[in-house]
Amino acid sequence: MALLENVKTPADIKKLSVKELELLAEEIRALIIETVTKNGGHLSPNLGMVETTLALYYVFDFSCDKLLFDVGHQSYTHKILNEGAEKFATLRTNGGISGFPDPTENDYDAFIAGHAGNSIGAGLGMCFSRDLLKENYTVACVVGDASIMNGVSLEAITEKNKKPNNFVVILNDNGMSISKNENGFYKSLIKSTTKKPYIKFKGGAKKLFGKSFLGNALRSFKRFLRRLFNPNHIIDDLGFKYFGTVDGHNLKELIKSFNRVKNYGEAVLITVKTIKGKGFIEAENAPSKFHGIGKNLTVSQNDCSAKIGQTLIDLASKDDKIVALTAGMTDGVGLARYAETYPNRFIDVGISEELAVLKSAGIAKAGLKPCVFIYSTFLQRAYDEIMHDIALQNLPVIFCIDRAGLVGSDGKTHQGVYDLSYLRHIPNLSIFAPKDTVELSSALKFALEQNSPIAIRYPNGKVEDFTSHTEFSFSWETVKDGADAVVLACGNRAVKIALELEKHGVNAKIINARTVKPLDSSVLSQIENELIITVEDNALLGGFGSAVSEYFVQNKKTAKIISFGIKDEFVSHGTVEKQLEDNGVTAKNIALCIKESR
Amino acid sequence: MALLENVKTPADIKKLSVKELELLAEEIRALIIETVTKNGGHLSPNLGMVETTLALYYVFDFSCDKLLFDVGHQSYTHKILNEGAEKFATLRTNGGISGFPDPTENDYDAFIAGHAGNSIGAGLGMCFSRDLLKENYTVACVVGDASIMNGVSLEAITEKNKKPNNFVVILNDNGMSISKNENGFYKSLIKSTTKKPYIKFKGGAKKLFGKSFLGNALRSFKRFLRRLFNPNHIIDDLGFKYFGTVDGHNLKELIKSFNRVKNYGEAVLITVKTIKGKGFIEAENAPSKFHGIGKNLTVSQNDCSAKIGQTLIDLASKDDKIVALTAGMTDGVGLARYAETYPNRFIDVGISEELAVLKSAGIAKAGLKPCVFIYSTFLQRAYDEIMHDIALQNLPVIFCIDRAGLVGSDGKTHQGVYDLSYLRHIPNLSIFAPKDTVELSSALKFALEQNSPIAIRYPNGKVEDFTSHTEFSFSWETVKDGADAVVLACGNRAVKIALELEKHGVNAKIINARTVKPLDSSVLSQIENELIITVEDNALLGGFGSAVSEYFVQNKKTAKIISFGIKDEFVSHGTVEKQLEDNGVTAKNIALCIKESR
Repeated sequence: MALLENVKTPADIKKLSVKELELLAEEIRALIIETVTKNGGHLSPNLGMVETTLALYYVFDFSCDKLLFDVGHQSYTHKILNEGAEKFATLRTNGGISGFPDPTENDYDAFIAGHAGNSIGAGLGMCFSRDLLKENYTVACVVGDASIMNGVSLEAITEKNKKPNNFVVILNDNGMSISKNENGFYKSLIKSTTKKPYIKFKGGAKKLFGKSFLGNALRSFKRFLRRLFNPNHIIDDLGFKYFGTVDGHNLKELIKSFNRVKNYGEAVLITVKTIKGKGFIEAENAPSKFHGIGKNLTVSQNDCSAKIGQTLIDLASKDDKIVALTAGMTDGVGLARYAETYPNRFIDVGISEELAVLKSAGIAKAGLKPCVFIYSTFLQRAYDEIMHDIALQNLPVIFCIDRAGLVGSDGKTHQGVYDLSYLRHIPNLSIFAPKDTVELSSALKFALEQNSPIAIRYPNGKVEDFTSHTEFSFSWETVKDGADAVVLACGNRAVKIALELEKHGVNAKIINARTVKPLDSSVLSQIENELIITVEDNALLGGFGSAVSEYFVQNKKTAKIISFGIKDEFVSHGTVEKQLEDNGVTAKNIALCIKESR
Repeated sequence: MALLENVKTPADIKKLSVKELELLAEEIRALIIETVTKNGGHLSPNLGMVETTLALYYVFDFSCDKLLFDVGHQSYTHKILNEGAEKFATLRTNGGISGFPDPTENDYDAFIAGHAGNSIGAGLGMCFSRDLLKENYTVACVVGDASIMNGVSLEAITEKNKKPNNFVVILNDNGMSISKNENGFYKSLIKSTTKKPYIKFKGGAKKLFGKSFLGNALRSFKRFLRRLFNPNHIIDDLGFKYFGTVDGHNLKELIKSFNRVKNYGEAVLITVKTIKGKGFIEAENAPSKFHGIGKNLTVSQNDCSAKIGQTLIDLASKDDKIVALTAGMTDGVGLARYAETYPNRFIDVGISEELAVLKSAGIAKAGLKPCVFIYSTFLQRAYDEIMHDIALQNLPVIFCIDRAGLVGSDGKTHQGVYDLSYLRHIPNLSIFAPKDTVELSSALKFALEQNSPIAIRYPNGKVEDFTSHTEFSFSWETVKDGADAVVLACGNRAVKIALELEKHGVNAKIINARTVKPLDSSVLSQIENELIITVEDNALLGGFGSAVSEYFVQNKKTAKIISFGIKDEFVSHGTVEKQLEDNGVTAKNIALCIKESR
């Protein structure tokens, strides 16, 4: 790491020659591979962005210019330049640095970036302030080819208001994205790339004549040239000057292009062509597999995703009305095999969560049984569609909410601890939280037998199955009897914790509160004068515990309730265990509370 | 109404001549004007769509074909054809018909349509089911030129998956939309319209050769022609065949065009050029004013919107960092005068709620003070951006949430009764619910002095100011002392109802709970052994009452709480008074409850 050691601040790389930058790129690449092997993380997208990031830092000055990543999982090179190799070793660990840009972590992290598609809109906002405050810097957004197709990204690109000057969108085209992206609109954007002569001429003419010289006459001529060389000028219609495609691994070309872009002034869009996984042959050959990867480069084990994917295949073999949808996450949600088995009953809309949900509404309305597979945190994008398009019409859509609850090392931007709170007040919608993979399977089967919208939430990671099971229904399940308190445990982690109470000297009745909505009133109505403990890995505000309190208020009963769940603070990356502990959701803490309350 | 009387079912209009249809159009127009004058409603957009709707019914058979409106406020002609003149007279009234399509009301209402931009995605879903079920019907979506620019609409148009056959998008271009829409992408779509010769040729060639004849050779030739006549073929890239623009008030042309479109098979997009307010000269001249209008064609009085608009002008005159944003609702949210006064500190992004919120995040991050004005129900679209882009970075963005609480005659799709529930669990976000317009003004000033995200919610309609006031702060205000119960009233309607308790024989202490988050713990901690009544016009699940229950659980105290608010059901159109009554949120009912609980 000879070169990297000398990069004390990002500005130091400006002193390097292109040859040295190329060597630095290799050092960084090695460091990324080493660190991801050790800690897990996003490998392929980061390996693809090494040279582009270096060239951006070489040309721009991000101590005043702003660099926004969209999505954030291509920002490791940027992290390394800013945090140094030593700190980068703590990537995604308890107390270490985040795998995503986070302005609370580093001033060079210009904007949060966990959910796809936010950079262009945020960048437009920054430019607005900059111009009104008469400040002088460039806002640069690095956008993935999949995230540019997200609704809010499209709203930003197509916004009617004039695009600002000194606004640079760098479109990272790795021809892959999380799942493959084949899109007419996107192709329209890209197609113009073949028309280099016009861009070159335009750049030359500008250099020659300056910005205001020749005025209208030149503009007309430019229009003529544009039409001649570049008939598909949608980019121009959208208010961007298009600068074609650059080889995203050729530092010399990248630097030359970014220098040209930097001095152009107007809003600019430029495409860098990159290879996902570049420099690590296994990742180049299977970029999706190595997109996000666990420690020792093993595929992360998500037992619930695997189980529900298999269950869906089984159910679909008996019911040809079942359809599965996802939003760019076929592998992540466990649908890869289903998609191969039933390609005509599978839809991946790309990173367009709203469309996935809306389309499922249409599918249900027209007679089929859609199951929508989206991560809890990304489903936030489709909150309105769940309410307006599905619940309002009481359509039988099943939401399979993966990565619900704490997610561990992905951190703040990806926590699935809000779904109970943002779904619970939606009329007509039922919410299930099965206790393990066996019950998850049973819950999906049960949900498909109902005729109304149902959300099923389940966590990431390894999930140990419990020994005893009853068929899923609207009734809660008594897991264990006991006298010290009634513990209403919601979901896998809560039931697991509840069962550990015994070790801490508490003999509680444990109930698997597997339906968050409706609550099981036959259980609740029988509780008299007992201490009630609710446990969940959702936010306390508006979550399951809140629902239990509401029950007693609505039934004009008082009850002694203590709720355990996620505090009203964003939860940083780390292990799930650490995150539970930070929030006091541990058997030890709950046992202590019960003892104190007796 | 000679002709209309004979239209017993929509199919009856198929028997009419074009001449008779023209007369029918005039009858319908007169009925719309008469009914809206009597009941209030959406005038301009509906007057613009009379002929187009008639032509669609003439050509298609919507007893099996599906007609989706987007947004629904252009569906009155459709309502009249299906419900008849008599029922149409009950438009937007208690127990009467809805002003928006609603499948629970009529089978011809193919899909819900209150929020803009949902028809294309829903339509794509319906086509998916239809094709898998091997059914045979056409799905037609009538889309406004403003709503097509919404994120979820853009996701649907640009979706990578192949567009289905027998899918017709009718783009209603009235060159106006709610606020003016000048958009590069939209212009790209529309621009192709001038290239009629190609479309005509294409149609002709198809008629001549049939679908499969000549195969590849013909396709190449078509490509060549397309390039020749229509260089901007983004529409083709997106998988639609474009059929140009038709005069939306010329029944003969409309029928001819729709017939051509109907038999084309593939996904088709066609533009109808309409005049908003057509046939009612005042509305033609001021279409925005008559977009949505009150009884007797008077502009609906929204005291809070007016007040906050004026307050913002005052504050902006002293603080040049203040910026206002809206999403296509400049007039509705009371920003028209502000926009004129401070055009360079005003942004209307069009109907793109996500972009409005995201852009405000960028604006705040780069040093200005954005205030985002959006209706409660439409802000649902931006739930994720509020969480991920604003709250997570603790950015000082002020959300001015208009039409919060019950909205009256707009009904189910527009109720603002969920914002407390979808916002309350978001960390870092404060939520204010001032009791009247004086306090609203004070709340905005106070919010701008903080340095964190704050949501201020306020209702539509007339708001009577109370007599006494204190400066807005994080402390609740005691409005009146009393011994029978402690009434925590949240927002204008709740305080008003609480003050009426006295008339019903209850002497309660009344507290203006003007901060929903944080709660005023100095007030709550002092309540001992008293009956607590919470009142709000938000959903009971996850709302203000729920927050109060949570407080007592978190503080390990028991309390006797009774909560009044909106039940877990969607609330239909009618008067706000009726809606409150249906939900038991009346002084009479609350008084009864207090007496029973004593």
